[in-house]
Amino acid sequence: MNREEHDRLALDKHRAWGGKIEVTTSVPVDTAEDLALAYTPGVAAACLEIERNPEASYELTRRHNLCLVVTDGTAVLGLGDIGPEAAMPVMEGKCALFKRFGDVDAFPLCLKTKSVDEIVDTIYWLSGSFAGINLEDIAAPRCFEIERRLKERCDIPIFHDDQHGTAIVSLAALLNALKVVSKSLSEVKIVISGAGAAGISIAKLLLAAGAKHLILCDRRGIIAEDEEQADASKAEIARLTNQDCLHGTLQDAIRGADVFIGVSAPGLLSTADVATMAEDAIVFACANPVPEIYPDDALAGGARIVATGRSDFPNQINNVLAFPGIFRGCFDVRASDINEAMNVAAAKALAEIITVEELSETCILPEAFDPRVKTAVAAAVRAAAVASGIARKPCEAGTQAAVEEV
Amino acid sequence: MNREEHDRLALDKHRAWGGKIEVTTSVPVDTAEDLALAYTPGVAAACLEIERNPEASYELTRRHNLCLVVTDGTAVLGLGDIGPEAAMPVMEGKCALFKRFGDVDAFPLCLKTKSVDEIVDTIYWLSGSFAGINLEDIAAPRCFEIERRLKERCDIPIFHDDQHGTAIVSLAALLNALKVVSKSLSEVKIVISGAGAAGISIAKLLLAAGAKHLILCDRRGIIAEDEEQADASKAEIARLTNQDCLHGTLQDAIRGADVFIGVSAPGLLSTADVATMAEDAIVFACANPVPEIYPDDALAGGARIVATGRSDFPNQINNVLAFPGIFRGCFDVRASDINEAMNVAAAKALAEIITVEELSETCILPEAFDPRVKTAVAAAVRAAAVASGIARKPCEAGTQAAVEEV
Repeated sequence: MNREEHDRLALDKHRAWGGKIEVTTSVPVDTAEDLALAYTPGVAAACLEIERNPEASYELTRRHNLCLVVTDGTAVLGLGDIGPEAAMPVMEGKCALFKRFGDVDAFPLCLKTKSVDEIVDTIYWLSGSFAGINLEDIAAPRCFEIERRLKERCDIPIFHDDQHGTAIVSLAALLNALKVVSKSLSEVKIVISGAGAAGISIAKLLLAAGAKHLILCDRRGIIAEDEEQADASKAEIARLTNQDCLHGTLQDAIRGADVFIGVSAPGLLSTADVATMAEDAIVFACANPVPEIYPDDALAGGARIVATGRSDFPNQINNVLAFPGIFRGCFDVRASDINEAMNVAAAKALAEIITVEELSETCILPEAFDPRVKTAVAAAVRAAAVASGIARKPCEAGTQAAVEEV
Repeated sequence: MNREEHDRLALDKHRAWGGKIEVTTSVPVDTAEDLALAYTPGVAAACLEIERNPEASYELTRRHNLCLVVTDGTAVLGLGDIGPEAAMPVMEGKCALFKRFGDVDAFPLCLKTKSVDEIVDTIYWLSGSFAGINLEDIAAPRCFEIERRLKERCDIPIFHDDQHGTAIVSLAALLNALKVVSKSLSEVKIVISGAGAAGISIAKLLLAAGAKHLILCDRRGIIAEDEEQADASKAEIARLTNQDCLHGTLQDAIRGADVFIGVSAPGLLSTADVATMAEDAIVFACANPVPEIYPDDALAGGARIVATGRSDFPNQINNVLAFPGIFRGCFDVRASDINEAMNVAAAKALAEIITVEELSETCILPEAFDPRVKTAVAAAVRAAAVASGIARKPCEAGTQAAVEEV
C-alpha cells in the first residue's frame, strides 16, 4: 500500500471509528441505591472529605490516574499550525497510546487561543482535575514559556512531550549506540540539527546526562554565544553549548563529529557529509516522515549506526517508549513535578532494557510493544521522584510497583 | 440504615472505586499497523480533512458525543462553596448519569477560579473539543451571566442544569399534576419560593409554557417590580411576574394559591400555610435533603398532590429525567444551541410518558430508570431543534432516531 492509499484507509477508519476515546462509567448505576451512593445524597460524604483534605481528591475521584493532553494546535506533527479542531485526531491518538502503554486515563483538549497568558491560565485553572499535564504540539518558543510558567504555578507534573519525550528516547538510543561503538558520552563530539522544542530539549538532557562536546545548528548554521539569538531559549542554549564558539554551516559542524542528531528538515544531510564524520559515526535522522538522510545513504557514507523516527527502518526513535511510563511512574508516587533527574533515569532505564545479547547496530532501542518498557521506565521514574523528594505517596507494600522496586 | 451509616458506606465506596469515570480507548492499538492508522502517519489524513472542513471534527473525532460537565465548585448540592477539588465527586457522578441515561460521554472539569470573565474565557477556549457544555453547581447570580455570555460566544449547546434541568422536570410534573386536579396552567395561581438559579429558571419556563399568574418569593418575601432588586436577574424576573405588584411574605403569597413550588430552604412551609391554599393544592417541596414541608404535613394541610426532590417519597423531581435526554437529542442533530422551545418540548414529552392509566396523585413523573424517558425526551428535543432551525445534521434515514421521529 502506498502512502496515498494508506492515508485514504486511515481517513476511512477515522470516519468509521467516530473518535478513538470514550468516557465510561466504572461504578454500578443500575438501581436507585446505586444512585444514592454514587450521586446524591451519598456523594456529599466524599465531597466533604475532600473539602477537609484536598489531597483526598487523589483517593476519592479518578484524579490519581488522569492526565490532560492539551494543545493549541500550532505545531501538529509535521503539519504545522492547523488549529485546535484539526489537532484533535492526534490528541485522541495520544490518549489511546497513554491508555494502551501506561494504563493512564488521558483526556484531550484543544484550546482556541494562541496567547501564552491565556493558555497558561486555562491549564492552571483546570489543573486541579488532573494528576498531570502533557503539553503537546505547541510551537517553539512559546512552548518553553508555557511549560516554565505552568511548572511554577501547578503542583502536578507538567511535561511537554515534543521536548522531553523526544529527548529521553534520543538519549536512550545514544547510550546504547555508544556501547556498540565503545565510545563514551562525555568524550564524543555531538551535533544536533534543529533548535526548536526537540533540539533544545535534547541538548539539555544530553548535558544533564554528561555530554560535554555539543554543537547545535539551526537554519542559519552553528549557534554560537557571540551572535544575537532570536529568543531567550536559543540564547540560553548558545551559552550552554559550542564551548569553542565555532561558526559555520551544519557541514562545518559535523566534520569529525561522532554523533549527528537531526530533528530538523528532510534531506539536510548527504552521503558526502556523513563521510566527513569520525569513524563509527552515529546518525539519528529523525525528521518525519522524510528524514535528514535515509539510512542507506548514511550507511553508504560510513555511518555505523542509523536511527530514524520511522517504523519501517530499524532503531525507531519513538516517543511512545517514554511518555506512558513517565506518567505511570509519576502517578504511582503522586509526583508533584517532573525534573531532569527523572528524565535521565527514564532514558537510562530504557537503554538498559536491551540486553548485551540483543544489542547491535540495528537494535539500540526496544520495540513499542515490548512489555518491559512501561515497567522499567515507570520504576526508574518512581525511584528518581522519591530520590528528588517530590513523591507525595510511597509505593505501597504489596502493590505491583513495590514488588518491582525490590 | 440511617443517614450517618449511609454516608460512611458512600465514603467507603468512593475510596474503593477511586473515581467513577474512566477514559478508555475505543480502537485497536495492538499492532504496529494499528498505530500507523490511529496515530502517525495515518492520523494526518484526518487532521487535514478537519483543517479543510472544521465540521468534520464531529465525524472524525469523539466530539459528536462529548459533553463537558464544568463547575467552579461554588454551589455544590446543598453544601455551598466547597471549592473545585471537593466538587469533583458530584461532577463524576453526573458524568456517570450522562452515560447511563443518555449514552453521552461526559467529562468533568472543576475550575480553580470564581471570576466570571475567567470562567467564560476558559470554557470558550476549550469548547471546540466538545459537542455541548453542561454548567453545574455555579452560584447565582454569576451562573446567569456565565451562561448568557457563553451562549453568545459558542456554537454548541450551553445548559446550566441547576436552572433548566430543574425547570424542565418541574414543568413536566406540574403539567401532569394539573391533569389530575383538572386545572389549566394559564389559570392557576403559582407561587415559587426561592429566587436563585432554579427558582428564576422555573419561573421563566412556566411563563414560556403558558403560565400567567406567577409570584416569586425570596428570603425577604414577595418579589415586586416597584422594589429595588439585588441583581439584574431578580430585576428581570420582577418585571415578568407578580403582575398585580403584591407585597408581603411567602405566607401572604400562597393564600389562595393553586401551586407552591419550593426550591429554597428546609421547613419554610407549615401545615397551616398549606391549609390557606386553594382546593386541590399542588405542593412541590424540592429543598434537599430536607424539603420546605414533608409530604405528610402538606397532605394534612389539604394538599392533593405533593412532590419532593427525594427518592424516598412519591413524585421525585429529579433532574436525571431531563439532562441525559436533552443532550442526547441535541447531539443527535448536532444542535448549535439549546433554547426555551426545546426545554418546553422536553417537559411536555416527559409529562406525556405517564399514561392516563398510570396518572395519579402519586404518579405524576416517570421513575429515573424508566426506559421510555431518554427516548421520549431526546426525540422531542431533536424535533424542537429542527423546528427552531438550529439542527446542523438531519436524523439520518434508518437510524433509531429517524425511526422514532416517524
